[in-house]
Amino acid sequence: MARRVAVIGSGHTRFGVLPEGPRALLRSAVDRAVGSVDRGVERTALEEGFLGTLGIAGWQLGNVSAVLAEELGRTGLPVSHVENACASAGFALRAGILAIESGRRELVVVAGVEKMTDAPSPRRRYWLGVSGDTEWERLAGLTFAGVYGLLASRHMHELGTPPEALAEVAVKNHANARLNPNAHFQKAVSREEVLASPRVAAPLGLLDCCPVTDGAAAVLLASEETARRYTDRPILVAGVGAASDTLAVQERATLTGLPATRRAAAEAFRDAPIGRDDIDLVEAHDCFTIAELLALEDLGFAAPGEAAQWTLSGATRIGGRLPVNPDGGLKAKGHPIGATGVSQVHEIVLQLRGEAGPRQVAGARHALAHNVGGSGASATVTLFSAGAG
Amino acid sequence: MARRVAVIGSGHTRFGVLPEGPRALLRSAVDRAVGSVDRGVERTALEEGFLGTLGIAGWQLGNVSAVLAEELGRTGLPVSHVENACASAGFALRAGILAIESGRRELVVVAGVEKMTDAPSPRRRYWLGVSGDTEWERLAGLTFAGVYGLLASRHMHELGTPPEALAEVAVKNHANARLNPNAHFQKAVSREEVLASPRVAAPLGLLDCCPVTDGAAAVLLASEETARRYTDRPILVAGVGAASDTLAVQERATLTGLPATRRAAAEAFRDAPIGRDDIDLVEAHDCFTIAELLALEDLGFAAPGEAAQWTLSGATRIGGRLPVNPDGGLKAKGHPIGATGVSQVHEIVLQLRGEAGPRQVAGARHALAHNVGGSGASATVTLFSAGAG
Repeated sequence: MARRVAVIGSGHTRFGVLPEGPRALLRSAVDRAVGSVDRGVERTALEEGFLGTLGIAGWQLGNVSAVLAEELGRTGLPVSHVENACASAGFALRAGILAIESGRRELVVVAGVEKMTDAPSPRRRYWLGVSGDTEWERLAGLTFAGVYGLLASRHMHELGTPPEALAEVAVKNHANARLNPNAHFQKAVSREEVLASPRVAAPLGLLDCCPVTDGAAAVLLASEETARRYTDRPILVAGVGAASDTLAVQERATLTGLPATRRAAAEAFRDAPIGRDDIDLVEAHDCFTIAELLALEDLGFAAPGEAAQWTLSGATRIGGRLPVNPDGGLKAKGHPIGATGVSQVHEIVLQLRGEAGPRQVAGARHALAHNVGGSGASATVTLFSAGAG
Repeated sequence: MARRVAVIGSGHTRFGVLPEGPRALLRSAVDRAVGSVDRGVERTALEEGFLGTLGIAGWQLGNVSAVLAEELGRTGLPVSHVENACASAGFALRAGILAIESGRRELVVVAGVEKMTDAPSPRRRYWLGVSGDTEWERLAGLTFAGVYGLLASRHMHELGTPPEALAEVAVKNHANARLNPNAHFQKAVSREEVLASPRVAAPLGLLDCCPVTDGAAAVLLASEETARRYTDRPILVAGVGAASDTLAVQERATLTGLPATRRAAAEAFRDAPIGRDDIDLVEAHDCFTIAELLALEDLGFAAPGEAAQWTLSGATRIGGRLPVNPDGGLKAKGHPIGATGVSQVHEIVLQLRGEAGPRQVAGARHALAHNVGGSGASATVTLFSAGAG
């Protein structure tokens, strides 16, 4: 690789059912990211933007790339809109990293946003549903909850995963979210409540599902050399991986994991000076509780079938062996589609700088962000390390 | 810049009202691109894909990135979906170039596709319309033809551009399209026919507008070093530029040009070992006839107000001083939104290799591709040079 890339600042809106529209959310996130840089940064120093969002259907606004430049106050700035379903921001982040590695840019902004709660219900269902396979699955009635319900059933059947392990993901992530003022849900749930919640797609109940959420997040990336001008505590990108899979779940050889995650993780670690043992916390793509268990196994931390035990033992709690989603995750922080992949990096910046307050993972130096698109047809894995402090 | 990037192959479907769906179109384009490589290429050598398409609304298929990997026969390959309205493929091309410049990739595929003719009419109008400003322009009734009609009116008013110059763009591009078997329109039109065609948005008539078209195109990019293994006649990327502008036309300081094009061109030439005088042909974004005149001026070839005279004098015809859109352009070849920016590169590959047959620009060595998104809120300019032959 030509040179290293670092995060020098990040910003995050509140996640939830918000009054703001997508422009205001985006503006708020980029304003906070710009304002977060230790020694300050002029907006005129930003050379390019990358925007993750599904956007086009939900906002009734297309060519949304231009909106990022406008809300940044930098009309004219080149901006690419990257849309890889729920992994839009993960892929936008990767595009920003490549732009700096190419040598063409020194300083770029990567933002993600979604305004989900103002869509009338039929459109909302349509909008999300199209990110899975349409011809053979969606039109046959397979929703996203249905996809993950199938994966959960199969995981239980083949690997003996108990319902309590799924419920424990929700319990943990709701508990973590209460420590995160930006999180959508601020309410603890008990294992019994999760297990008794109305079924959405068996074995998944309502409390196994992430909410429909508005929000935005933004990060500023720089070459390592440039980063040192702006901060003494850059967060370095240590590895990058991305992969795809069949759009249709039925065409995959396995239903007990997401091969795209495995491929992306393999690439990210192949590239990295660190290994899985070095990772202090994981931001995993837990759109449903089962997804966090799949992630733990697909990322190579737990062996197949062991994620349940990890979770039930408390290993993934803050203070556990490998904290997962200390910010509450998609499950409880919320999952504004295009914002999620950048929101994860925001949390990692806080954690690796020791600024995560009551949810701080003690001594965190290395972290992993994992973003999945559609029903597992796209995935990114990005590794981060605290720079010399 | 770390290293140079080259095009080693390209493929193109027929453009028109086609029976194929988006998957088949995409497959056909990538198959042809792979098959076009002089010394052959294994699909397994391709490391990543970039897909330009509006896609999501038109196909009822989301997370379309995965579809490129599937149709390439490379499920698992990382693919990013780039959506910058009508400049989607121009920005996807740029993303592919950055991926190679970053040092992470040696060989990537960039494809663009749009299936436009199977959308029911109201959806089709909605779908394209969202790529302009929604809140203040689209909902007030400003269509894309309306935007370009305004630009044409203002250009005529301020710079004296005669209606005959607009008509001559259509006449030339229809004539060129007859030399291109892939073009949607295969019918010559006369200046009188264009001038007498039903008004769509005065001063633009039906024959001033590009058609609604299905089609796909793909190119393979490699680092210069890797390219030499596959071909003795790589087409080198000589410059890259991209820019944005306000989403709303009314917020711009000028209506006689597209500032995003000017900015993108300035960046592309700043970066390049060649200047405007070296360019032998231009693939310009002529979604409406006026757009080709704007492009000639905004790209810095003609002075403001002079594009009309260039056009009327025959300078932009094949055989003229600076041939523009020898393949028929968006106007007559057709404009399948997400395919256009890659389709332009396909034509440039043919031209710079001397393989453009009856529409060959004699001795062409350097070319420019210009792709515009929305009503000018995004633009890319990419320069190409024939490698040593």
